[in-house]
Amino acid sequence: MLSKSQVKYIKSLSIKKFRTKHNQFICEGSKIVKELLEIQSFQIDILCATEKWLLDNNHLLNSYSGQLVQLKTQDLKKISNLKTPGEVLAIVGIPEFSFKKEISKKLCLYCDNIQDPGNMGTILRIADWFGLPYVFASPQSVDFYNPKTIQASMGAFLRVNHISCELSKLTELFPEMTIYGTRMQGKNVFKHDLQKNGIILIGNEGRGISENNAQLVGEWISIPSGGGAESLNAAVAAGIICACFKNL
Amino acid sequence: MLSKSQVKYIKSLSIKKFRTKHNQFICEGSKIVKELLEIQSFQIDILCATEKWLLDNNHLLNSYSGQLVQLKTQDLKKISNLKTPGEVLAIVGIPEFSFKKEISKKLCLYCDNIQDPGNMGTILRIADWFGLPYVFASPQSVDFYNPKTIQASMGAFLRVNHISCELSKLTELFPEMTIYGTRMQGKNVFKHDLQKNGIILIGNEGRGISENNAQLVGEWISIPSGGGAESLNAAVAAGIICACFKNL
Repeated sequence: MLSKSQVKYIKSLSIKKFRTKHNQFICEGSKIVKELLEIQSFQIDILCATEKWLLDNNHLLNSYSGQLVQLKTQDLKKISNLKTPGEVLAIVGIPEFSFKKEISKKLCLYCDNIQDPGNMGTILRIADWFGLPYVFASPQSVDFYNPKTIQASMGAFLRVNHISCELSKLTELFPEMTIYGTRMQGKNVFKHDLQKNGIILIGNEGRGISENNAQLVGEWISIPSGGGAESLNAAVAAGIICACFKNL
Repeated sequence: MLSKSQVKYIKSLSIKKFRTKHNQFICEGSKIVKELLEIQSFQIDILCATEKWLLDNNHLLNSYSGQLVQLKTQDLKKISNLKTPGEVLAIVGIPEFSFKKEISKKLCLYCDNIQDPGNMGTILRIADWFGLPYVFASPQSVDFYNPKTIQASMGAFLRVNHISCELSKLTELFPEMTIYGTRMQGKNVFKHDLQKNGIILIGNEGRGISENNAQLVGEWISIPSGGGAESLNAAVAAGIICACFKNL
């Protein structure tokens, strides 16, 4: 059983302010929690699960040293952010990432003020699919640990390093990396001679790339349009550009 | 003012059963309603708007012959599906589309049991961006007029023909069209000799392409992965494949 104050505390972690304050976030669903237990690179502080889940997954708990709370399904519902709550929920410590030298040799994504948590999760999933090891996001972007981001990422946040920082910090640390921006007048991404490393900017859903960051762009690219839409969804655009960088 | 029964009726249109029964759907937001009034190819039955919106857009109402209801912002809130209701909402008749001969010469999308209305809207937006004039969807898919689909399509449903039908109906009508399916073992879409026409299948978010429809596939293609994710989001995959068909 969880006390009322514990329920309140866990529920508070669905709000960014409290995630930042306590440096913790929520992970839900059997698949993702099992992966968390297996990879052991994230610190799980509390694991809430049904008796059945704990019995079925006992083998994964040998090296787990955090708090374990056995709950009934209806009690899990009280702390869940999902429409259909699963059998397990974990309270996980927010990891710290550092700016390793290898970044300069990689193809990376930078989210410039992405606001939709579903888009952010989908962008992490795209990076995971194409083997991009780093996703950066401006401090104004939706945070990586929003419950909807975690859900949409389908576990990608476990494999893709994700760091919140200004783009100018990256250009200071890695001046040799080309910053790629997308705009209508950019060079067709299918005809461009793309590099194996660099930083691809993903602009905000409504306003695109911010003025400050546009000044740091070294190469402008575009996805050719043949129809009437004014723009593509931010995550779809990110997917097409990553696919071109990795396959052209 | 709207009567209680009118409010109830309009709110009922956010549910598929009632949209089908009354053959009407809801369109919200100034940009999209202005476009509806301009193109005149959809029948608007009721237009609910604030006094200010009606004054500002009076020039668009000359040829409008449906019902006009002036509402206060707080009354619009009562019938809105948006978190931040706009100044105008239209009740629109569901249009009928026919299977024109030209379809066989076009590149089309077919949604095989797409369940997420946001994905469906994004797929329409992708078709619109790349100039694909037809999007088909299996009868089991989320319908095109779900309020979240309409929002996510960003007006694309106005320009892209969208028809609910079985895939087998399309193969009967247009046996000369190649059906493209996506699976891991398919040929790299970046290396494939793609045609200018055909039907690209977009599989369900969790289960992919259904068994029945897989039997109709003529060419299997794939988006090469270099990372750990098991799959891409359905709309992102659709975007990458359309980009390849249009630009390779």
